[in-house]
Amino acid sequence: MTAPTRRPTRRPTATRLAESMLVGGGTDAVHAWLADTAERTWMRVERVPLDDLAGWRTEPGTGNLRHHTGRFFSVESLAVDLPGAPVPHWSQPIINQPEIGILGILVREVDGVLHCLMQAKHEPGNPNGLQLSPTVQATRSNYTGVHRGKPIPYLDHFRDTSAHRVVVDIRQSEQGAWFYRKRNRNMVVEVDGEVEVREGFRWLTLGQVAELMTVPDLVNMDARTVLACLPGGGAALAGAATDPFTEALVRSADPAASGVHGIGDVLSWITEVRTRTDLRVSLGPLAGLPDWARENGVIAHRDGGFFTVVGVDVAAGGREVGAWSQPMVEPVGTGVIAFLVKVIDGVLHVLAHARTEAGYADVTELAPTVQCVPETHDRLPARPRFLDEVLTSSRVRFDTVLSEEGGRFLGARNRYVVVETDVEVPPDDPEYRWLTLNQFEELLRHSFYVNIQARSLLLCLRSLVPRG
Amino acid sequence: MTAPTRRPTRRPTATRLAESMLVGGGTDAVHAWLADTAERTWMRVERVPLDDLAGWRTEPGTGNLRHHTGRFFSVESLAVDLPGAPVPHWSQPIINQPEIGILGILVREVDGVLHCLMQAKHEPGNPNGLQLSPTVQATRSNYTGVHRGKPIPYLDHFRDTSAHRVVVDIRQSEQGAWFYRKRNRNMVVEVDGEVEVREGFRWLTLGQVAELMTVPDLVNMDARTVLACLPGGGAALAGAATDPFTEALVRSADPAASGVHGIGDVLSWITEVRTRTDLRVSLGPLAGLPDWARENGVIAHRDGGFFTVVGVDVAAGGREVGAWSQPMVEPVGTGVIAFLVKVIDGVLHVLAHARTEAGYADVTELAPTVQCVPETHDRLPARPRFLDEVLTSSRVRFDTVLSEEGGRFLGARNRYVVVETDVEVPPDDPEYRWLTLNQFEELLRHSFYVNIQARSLLLCLRSLVPRG
Repeated sequence: MTAPTRRPTRRPTATRLAESMLVGGGTDAVHAWLADTAERTWMRVERVPLDDLAGWRTEPGTGNLRHHTGRFFSVESLAVDLPGAPVPHWSQPIINQPEIGILGILVREVDGVLHCLMQAKHEPGNPNGLQLSPTVQATRSNYTGVHRGKPIPYLDHFRDTSAHRVVVDIRQSEQGAWFYRKRNRNMVVEVDGEVEVREGFRWLTLGQVAELMTVPDLVNMDARTVLACLPGGGAALAGAATDPFTEALVRSADPAASGVHGIGDVLSWITEVRTRTDLRVSLGPLAGLPDWARENGVIAHRDGGFFTVVGVDVAAGGREVGAWSQPMVEPVGTGVIAFLVKVIDGVLHVLAHARTEAGYADVTELAPTVQCVPETHDRLPARPRFLDEVLTSSRVRFDTVLSEEGGRFLGARNRYVVVETDVEVPPDDPEYRWLTLNQFEELLRHSFYVNIQARSLLLCLRSLVPRG
Repeated sequence: MTAPTRRPTRRPTATRLAESMLVGGGTDAVHAWLADTAERTWMRVERVPLDDLAGWRTEPGTGNLRHHTGRFFSVESLAVDLPGAPVPHWSQPIINQPEIGILGILVREVDGVLHCLMQAKHEPGNPNGLQLSPTVQATRSNYTGVHRGKPIPYLDHFRDTSAHRVVVDIRQSEQGAWFYRKRNRNMVVEVDGEVEVREGFRWLTLGQVAELMTVPDLVNMDARTVLACLPGGGAALAGAATDPFTEALVRSADPAASGVHGIGDVLSWITEVRTRTDLRVSLGPLAGLPDWARENGVIAHRDGGFFTVVGVDVAAGGREVGAWSQPMVEPVGTGVIAFLVKVIDGVLHVLAHARTEAGYADVTELAPTVQCVPETHDRLPARPRFLDEVLTSSRVRFDTVLSEEGGRFLGARNRYVVVETDVEVPPDDPEYRWLTLNQFEELLRHSFYVNIQARSLLLCLRSLVPRG
């Protein structure tokens, strides 16, 4: 192994990323490519009772669902104590997937503009088949050959980065309500040389992806979380603004902008919340879970709420060939995931919520202002704060339904909303703080500060920068 | 609750901290004050068999040691799998203390110079009685009254900071070999107004504490970890250097200095190590632990190595009055904790080791170049890398024996060493990287990047800045 050679100096990566965000257009061709790919590939998903899932067994005694190899993931239960919360104790099924996968996007300058190598990919849980996905989406079981499938295209660029430029490389959490401490490695790697574009892959600018964010269920969750970790504010965006809102948006992404709270105060507040929140969880057996029943081939809550664990048989053809079976989590209802945003002293601020989820590795993460399934909340004690402000606002800046990860969740959809507001929040509110986009960017260099829903929503918000 | 009022603008905190580091002297008076305090206070510690510990019981079935209230901490076992390591599987006793305590130091400008309010405090495990401790050292059980003791002096300044200025507020880990995911909240809070100095407390500059770092067993572990989290490099130190080594040291603490690796590359390397390290641990019963036996009133390894769990009766008089019993961990041997440092392009670099300990909350933290107990290593398969370089060097910059936390560890002492070196380390070494002091400062704004031993050692290194 030799030391990496010094590569030629180039303009700062954040500047080049901002420039890529300003280049849009050509999305008709993208839709045509997606339609063409959809014609030549297919995935069939059929529900089957959990008892009939090939390759999966119900562990005697615990009732946990496990793959016969012991790999991939298992469905177990989590007992949760959260003293002082509206519901201070509960137990629930949870997906335990200790392996850390790679979500990777390859970027490269094409005609002087950074492009992302995106993939049109089927997942069994996608409500609409193909979605725009990262270059690589691989669990360790994938790439160490438990699947016995073909090699994963482009994976080597992420497993050995010594010949490339690493732009993003950070573990981030996923849904803490459905996963036990799940985290994936979010990576963006820049290559200099030629890269063969395989069937089902396409180079897109950040601006093109931003324009596609307004298409329902198109940009998948894995692509959103990786792109959200990219830097990209600063001077390069300055000329793009066209009105007071986008001026404030651009300023918010600028490292020079000051927020109503310093980053030190934000970190201290996060420390305070994580310290005072006495979350205790323990994994346990799925069998005998109070309020949940395994009947009719699924595991469901007795009230029909929250989510159901179901089984599916999957068959795929065309570019990806194969057949397998797996359990999936099928949520009840469509969620609302929303940021309230507000211009303060000319800088756009985002109202972050310090949210505790049972499956988080570190108690609390910054979440959207509102993150809930309104119909589930009819059965819970408290109505989410700011939900009515979101649902009744006339100043909606973004509003698109997007899907969650189709590899584990069946038809999981959320309405992602950004709403401008004048609401006042006390500066020492125990649960909420106004942050700038640049402060989020600083936090996103580290693990477990910003939850997956907030990451998606930050990308939605940044996609509002006007393009030419 | 009212919003905090804006306080008058002052010079940057990092500058004022650096200036305090340059003010030393007067340590004779500190020693006289310590001697005087020692005369008027006492603590008696007697070993007792674990079976006779008042207030503690051995849980039937598990054999775990627990306080009858269920609070404070327990001694349980941890089963560890670490495939690929020299010892890929082991089980050990471990302290489980889920509560997050506060380690807090109050600072205040006295005659224009920042001073820290330090406490002369007994702990049962201290080899020499009184040590220089933070203003506040409190577990949650302490301050929620399980102790039924007197109120803790100055605690309110840390529990409600709204009237003060928060300088440091971050959870950091402690010894991952002895604690299961223990973390404490490290806080530094600046007050403007008058503060009553109670008996046993004294204002010291950072420079005075730095001078006292060379006295064996004087500055306690809790004080070291909190002070290590302080910022304090930059221009204010620039005039202090007196030779090429201290010039390189001062430059290393300057945010403007560039290191051999950018901070992005360092973060990516940490992500890589944390991803590839497949650490699996599970808490379990202390009874029936292979290779460990509970005999003669203690729990010891069959070979006599590592550490022993012992019981003590404690009685204190003078300022702190009381009597209690508790289990403690008594390590075997004196450890060596060392940084190799090297001037590269005029900037001092510190060789950090990515170290995995079974009790860490997040797999791996940056540790000293060498962290081991040489005599324990005689019974382990591999000799620690760089240990011989440390033990045989003639370029020793710091070398003092300091104690670990005397509330849990009985006579735990380590030799803290900083050694200058010319050793070459490949830039893509999987386990080691050269970092600047400023890069450490940046990492120390966040939890769980820098382990407790490295934090102590960073303070030792920073104490080498020449004073007047």
